[in-house]
Amino acid sequence: MSKYTTLYQHGTLALLVPGLLDGTITMGDLLKKGDTGIGTGEGLDGELIILDGKPYQVNAEGKVTVVSDKFTLPFANSHFARYAPLAELENVDQDDLNKQMLSLSRAENTFFSLKVTGTFADIKTRAVSKSKQPYKSLAETAKNQSIFTRDKVTGTLISYYSPQLFNGAAVGGFHHHFISDDHKFGGHVLDFRLVKGEVGYQLFDTLEQHLPVNNKAYMAHDFTQDDIAGSIQASE
Amino acid sequence: MSKYTTLYQHGTLALLVPGLLDGTITMGDLLKKGDTGIGTGEGLDGELIILDGKPYQVNAEGKVTVVSDKFTLPFANSHFARYAPLAELENVDQDDLNKQMLSLSRAENTFFSLKVTGTFADIKTRAVSKSKQPYKSLAETAKNQSIFTRDKVTGTLISYYSPQLFNGAAVGGFHHHFISDDHKFGGHVLDFRLVKGEVGYQLFDTLEQHLPVNNKAYMAHDFTQDDIAGSIQASE
Repeated sequence: MSKYTTLYQHGTLALLVPGLLDGTITMGDLLKKGDTGIGTGEGLDGELIILDGKPYQVNAEGKVTVVSDKFTLPFANSHFARYAPLAELENVDQDDLNKQMLSLSRAENTFFSLKVTGTFADIKTRAVSKSKQPYKSLAETAKNQSIFTRDKVTGTLISYYSPQLFNGAAVGGFHHHFISDDHKFGGHVLDFRLVKGEVGYQLFDTLEQHLPVNNKAYMAHDFTQDDIAGSIQASE
Repeated sequence: MSKYTTLYQHGTLALLVPGLLDGTITMGDLLKKGDTGIGTGEGLDGELIILDGKPYQVNAEGKVTVVSDKFTLPFANSHFARYAPLAELENVDQDDLNKQMLSLSRAENTFFSLKVTGTFADIKTRAVSKSKQPYKSLAETAKNQSIFTRDKVTGTLISYYSPQLFNGAAVGGFHHHFISDDHKFGGHVLDFRLVKGEVGYQLFDTLEQHLPVNNKAYMAHDFTQDDIAGSIQASE
């Protein structure tokens, strides 16, 4: 298992669905597994993006702050960045970008990451408001989300692609988080147009899937009644 | 990631379904990831079981041999054994054992392994006959399988349990392989009754999922047309 070909994942997307939102990994531990990543905080406390080893949180007010090593997360990805240039793109929307990158990379059946830097237009992000115990389902909790938009902004998009086979454990397909260069805008990306930008690409041959086995709520939960795929599609 | 809490998996069960049966890891490399494991050879060449660092193959003639480090596999699991005693059981069938172990371990939502040593009755195993290029689907290839039975035999059963969320990547639920103490009988387990035996248990918090990214057939395959879940249920 090479350092640069491994994608680390803590938790699963599936555990968010019934509202297993305890923070079960600290940011400090997540950063031991990578200098780049995405995630959400305990109770769906905002949207996280890690760039160059620095963990930024976009909260439901749209405010961007750097979180401490003690910040905890129920679900997160990280990896050590070593992106190779893949493409320079102009005027592509989210669907175009996804399709072109799948076609260029020919990596539909494995995990990979994209790092897109440049100028984005009509970008729409969201961040969920932190909820407290007892947690409700993802669908309920995600109702308390804020939507943010920018007509034009320069920044960085970090994206993870997971094969459909792993949908439920991960987000099948692409999962994009964004942060602006001025650190005043970001979140989980819902839509965008890339005016002009460069795409870096990093392929993984290994998913290091870590599960919160010391979390009683997780270990005791009966997942058979959860509509994982349906709920993920509705929320992502 | 601790050595004893990580389950290594090379390939996915899903890739066997359309017949992506190239051997994409050597036994030598698999043994670097554990001293205990299960798998199948290139072209579904028999059933493998690794015990105490020794890799045994049961072929379609029912013959048990130790394979070399150069032997290749499309799909395999391995881990470093550190089983803790979980139960002593008498006169339980496969379903009973599975249910009791899930109930005792309370580990339905993570990966774990069982090692059952003792006397087995009415044990039924299978091993598939190696097929060559061009490979057919799992359903077609698995038609060339042999069934072996023993009224009574002492031996070791190695089992991996995977949460249903990972069905397709792994075998959701239990996946048992067996080898007799005299090394004259074994294979992928279809049925058994445990007359008397001891169950060792080892919990994993991490799945290290390795994918054959250098295999062109795997990377180019369109999985959207494969009925992964249905085919796995029919074959396992």
